[in-house]
Amino acid sequence: MAITMAMTSNGSPWRTRPTLTYDGIDRHDGSTTLGGYSREYVVRDRFAYALPAALDPAAAAPLLCAGITVWEPLHALGVGPGTRVAVAGLGGLGHLAVKIAVALGADTSVVSRSPDKADDARRLGAHGLIVSADPEQMADARDRFDVVLDTISAPHDLGPYLRLVAMDGTLSHLGHLGPVTVETTDLLVGRKKLSSAGSGGRPATASMLDFCAEHGVTADIELLPSARVNEALDRLRRNDVRYRFVLDMADLD
Amino acid sequence: MAITMAMTSNGSPWRTRPTLTYDGIDRHDGSTTLGGYSREYVVRDRFAYALPAALDPAAAAPLLCAGITVWEPLHALGVGPGTRVAVAGLGGLGHLAVKIAVALGADTSVVSRSPDKADDARRLGAHGLIVSADPEQMADARDRFDVVLDTISAPHDLGPYLRLVAMDGTLSHLGHLGPVTVETTDLLVGRKKLSSAGSGGRPATASMLDFCAEHGVTADIELLPSARVNEALDRLRRNDVRYRFVLDMADLD
Repeated sequence: MAITMAMTSNGSPWRTRPTLTYDGIDRHDGSTTLGGYSREYVVRDRFAYALPAALDPAAAAPLLCAGITVWEPLHALGVGPGTRVAVAGLGGLGHLAVKIAVALGADTSVVSRSPDKADDARRLGAHGLIVSADPEQMADARDRFDVVLDTISAPHDLGPYLRLVAMDGTLSHLGHLGPVTVETTDLLVGRKKLSSAGSGGRPATASMLDFCAEHGVTADIELLPSARVNEALDRLRRNDVRYRFVLDMADLD
Repeated sequence: MAITMAMTSNGSPWRTRPTLTYDGIDRHDGSTTLGGYSREYVVRDRFAYALPAALDPAAAAPLLCAGITVWEPLHALGVGPGTRVAVAGLGGLGHLAVKIAVALGADTSVVSRSPDKADDARRLGAHGLIVSADPEQMADARDRFDVVLDTISAPHDLGPYLRLVAMDGTLSHLGHLGPVTVETTDLLVGRKKLSSAGSGGRPATASMLDFCAEHGVTADIELLPSARVNEALDRLRRNDVRYRFVLDMADLD
């Protein structure tokens, strides 16, 4: 099984742009980089991560993208023991956000459209699930969280999620939503903050991997032989995976 | 000269809404409250502030509204020695924001549409003025400030001001702009935060007054006899005041 490690740059100081590992341009032969779909990857050692022995390679693979994406805002916002965290959306990013927030000691809840993920939320370590479609539950949770991590990638109104944020707290939304509109009042009352975050750099990714190894955090995955990639893509389109597919390339040997 | 102190509530625990000092309803006689236009005000002592002797009453009057409005975000965002602060808009709020930020030890700059306030900016203690209409100056100042305090009350694009914010920094905008639209990318790149703030409560207002007394901070005002109120209102509409009018009601005696 080949697990491709994430890389962020080819390290050439005289070039101003990084070589992206996926859909980038290889600096040696001009080919398109294939990221996780590569059979193999030749990379300078300082752009690879040592995978901690405690982590299953397949279940650790999503940490290099979804994991670091949720680690960055949780870390930057100082989430730790007792921080009240809500994770909106329980998908690939969301389920890792819950696991990492719980491992950091945060008092963690999930916000989801439908109640059918309540068991999963609890199994992942959350205290409970707030149903976003239920105005009463949303009103009860108003002003309650220091950090709301919004992992919903479909366009949606941020107002209801800002209202869950406590005084001086932050809504960090991780879906690349393009232009977003918020009511000034939803920021003004309670001095709330709207933020976002992308992926993380090499030191943060290495810290995240060490933390996950120490706390036994990996993604919940379905491992499929690479020949079944189209089935995986089809189910992804239907949002039918809990919570990440990983392709095992051993069948290519 | 009568200087009306600000009050935020009548303190009756069985009532859920505060009695606003301006355009509120008096709980005793049902009349409309007149705020700073009152000849006199009867108020419970715990809703009045002791004016520090070091502060000129006329120049201190605007501290009770503009002063506390800029104090709150500066304080909440931890502005202190060495914090890089930009104040956008040099008006009633802005000039006090500069004075208070400088007194807090911050490395303070002003962002203004036109260069003609550069002398004022420096006189108030700012290091300099960035002309927002000059794309080159705005580009040079990109990612440079931990805190950008946007005091511009006219509708405007927040994007250029977000781009001045440094990694993990905050744009706090204090104009009540209603719905505002920002590009996710302007928040994502640099994990920047968009926030806002209203006025402050009694403990914060008392602290602000003490701080201003200690550091000699008051508003730059024009003191007019109350009979000239219409002239003041007319000049306010033309944005022709540096930086606050205060009405002296002695002429009513």
